[in-house]
Amino acid sequence: MIETPYLLFLGDAPDPLAAKVAQGIKDWRPENCVGQFRLEGCKADLKIPDMTLAEAKAAGAKTLVIGVANRGGVISQTWKKVLVEALEEGFDLASGLHNLLRDEEDLAAVARATGRTLHDVRIPSVKYPIANGEPRKGKRLLAVGTDCSVGKMYTALALDAAMREKGMKSTFRATGQTGILITGDGVPLDAVIADFMAGSIEYLTPDNDDDHWDIIEGQGSLFHVSYSGVTMALVHGGQPDALVLCHEPTRSHMRGLPGYQLPTIEAVRDMALTLAQVANPACKVIGVSINTQHMGEDEAVAYCKEIEDRMGLPCVDPYRHGAERLAEAVAAL
Amino acid sequence: MIETPYLLFLGDAPDPLAAKVAQGIKDWRPENCVGQFRLEGCKADLKIPDMTLAEAKAAGAKTLVIGVANRGGVISQTWKKVLVEALEEGFDLASGLHNLLRDEEDLAAVARATGRTLHDVRIPSVKYPIANGEPRKGKRLLAVGTDCSVGKMYTALALDAAMREKGMKSTFRATGQTGILITGDGVPLDAVIADFMAGSIEYLTPDNDDDHWDIIEGQGSLFHVSYSGVTMALVHGGQPDALVLCHEPTRSHMRGLPGYQLPTIEAVRDMALTLAQVANPACKVIGVSINTQHMGEDEAVAYCKEIEDRMGLPCVDPYRHGAERLAEAVAAL
Repeated sequence: MIETPYLLFLGDAPDPLAAKVAQGIKDWRPENCVGQFRLEGCKADLKIPDMTLAEAKAAGAKTLVIGVANRGGVISQTWKKVLVEALEEGFDLASGLHNLLRDEEDLAAVARATGRTLHDVRIPSVKYPIANGEPRKGKRLLAVGTDCSVGKMYTALALDAAMREKGMKSTFRATGQTGILITGDGVPLDAVIADFMAGSIEYLTPDNDDDHWDIIEGQGSLFHVSYSGVTMALVHGGQPDALVLCHEPTRSHMRGLPGYQLPTIEAVRDMALTLAQVANPACKVIGVSINTQHMGEDEAVAYCKEIEDRMGLPCVDPYRHGAERLAEAVAAL
Repeated sequence: MIETPYLLFLGDAPDPLAAKVAQGIKDWRPENCVGQFRLEGCKADLKIPDMTLAEAKAAGAKTLVIGVANRGGVISQTWKKVLVEALEEGFDLASGLHNLLRDEEDLAAVARATGRTLHDVRIPSVKYPIANGEPRKGKRLLAVGTDCSVGKMYTALALDAAMREKGMKSTFRATGQTGILITGDGVPLDAVIADFMAGSIEYLTPDNDDDHWDIIEGQGSLFHVSYSGVTMALVHGGQPDALVLCHEPTRSHMRGLPGYQLPTIEAVRDMALTLAQVANPACKVIGVSINTQHMGEDEAVAYCKEIEDRMGLPCVDPYRHGAERLAEAVAAL
């Protein structure tokens, strides 16, 4: 559990995209962000107050979150200076970088000396159990996709927000690095040991109120041969009561797999539902989420309408049109 | 890669079952076993020569393999004495124990001093790639099961032996600890990091002769909610051309999951084939392997006949009836 609120470190981001983790945190949990810390030459701007470490500390910030990708997988000396100073001023550090904070000898030494915590969210901090498959109280929804990176995290975050807006009990459950930094907690599923994958998702979504929903961030795709095992663990470990199908219509092939066509949304529906019903026979597909970022407005609306008619399910782009209709479909279950 | 031949360490096994790893090595790779090493009170006997370390060394043994389960997860001082002496006499050590040889400070120190290798086959020794899904030369067969522990390893080993008997090119590919100790090589799939599972199986079964078959040991079951993600990685990483369905007919529920019924063999056929064809559209189911150990001879024969008629596929218990008919089905593909 990463302590909030955060000061978001944008470093010397060469463009806004490099700071997309920070942008995600600011978009989805603005209440967790007291300000941003930018170095000279930073080309990203979250439109929240620029703060020094001392100012952020005074504003209550507990953790400096590295919300920017580092160039070439190296934590530069320019960054180091700020990170060391932050530890000395009493901040914890949190990072989703591939190279770990704890592997940087200077940071590890200062963290030890100051008693601060280095959160490397790419690797698990918990010894997860093996899944026991027992039914749990409360409800769960899982986002499943035709492919990787089709908007499963965005869909889950938007749906969680729309459900809470309606007064429903809902918690977004992060299963990837960005999601973990956004919410301060979660399971970095792609880094979990094979035998414990499904168990880690049971751990992430424990017993809860009967009318509470865990909205579980999906990973990979049952049809993506590199990562399908990870997706499978979510389907069985999550024991979902509801599935949302996520799709990006303009892909010419599966991400990173030039030889592989995307499955149809119907194929994902049938495969995911059949497998989900092994763990939860009551599971239902409640809607479709389309990532229309590469489509014009008219095209996007027409496409969602077409899928809605074809599948007989509510179909929206939650970014473009909001997730209210998906939230209504959950409420109607 | 563990160096062969082996001296099999049976320790103070309280009964033959405790030495089942050693028994498996002796049954499937007798040519790799120069002898057995037993301590006082050992109740297991592989019916191969008892040897001292010096005798085994003289007979050419390269590795002392711990072929016995340890009591309470502790490597006792009685064992330690032998293991240290073995390192000093020039043996490598290999173990599938949960507690690792390398975590025993005395063994690690002696191994360093003598330049010998400690093989802990429970954990990967390779940095596996992420799966790329590209088609590979040669053929592959995967054993898939209705449940865990229904005989997938045995089926794969028996089929590999029967195929080689027929003069076919075949290699058993181990994906679990016992299989790795039997063959000296393989992937401990249940201990691989999630993102690299499918890639580890691609690594295990690389390009080969067009008429060569990799016979891949299965793990878990697509219908076993604790381990289905591991199975999925085998189905997609293995890119099988052929599947054998494995079943044990007397189970009242899924192993370790009292609330879960076993799927039908037909359900496993349909699910595994649909998923396998994502990676290899030419994949076919070629036969059924039944573990009839809890059935009388008449009942076993009648059951296999019934399944054979019902499924329209060769159906045998390879332990009871041999794997020749499965090998013929592979040859006929």
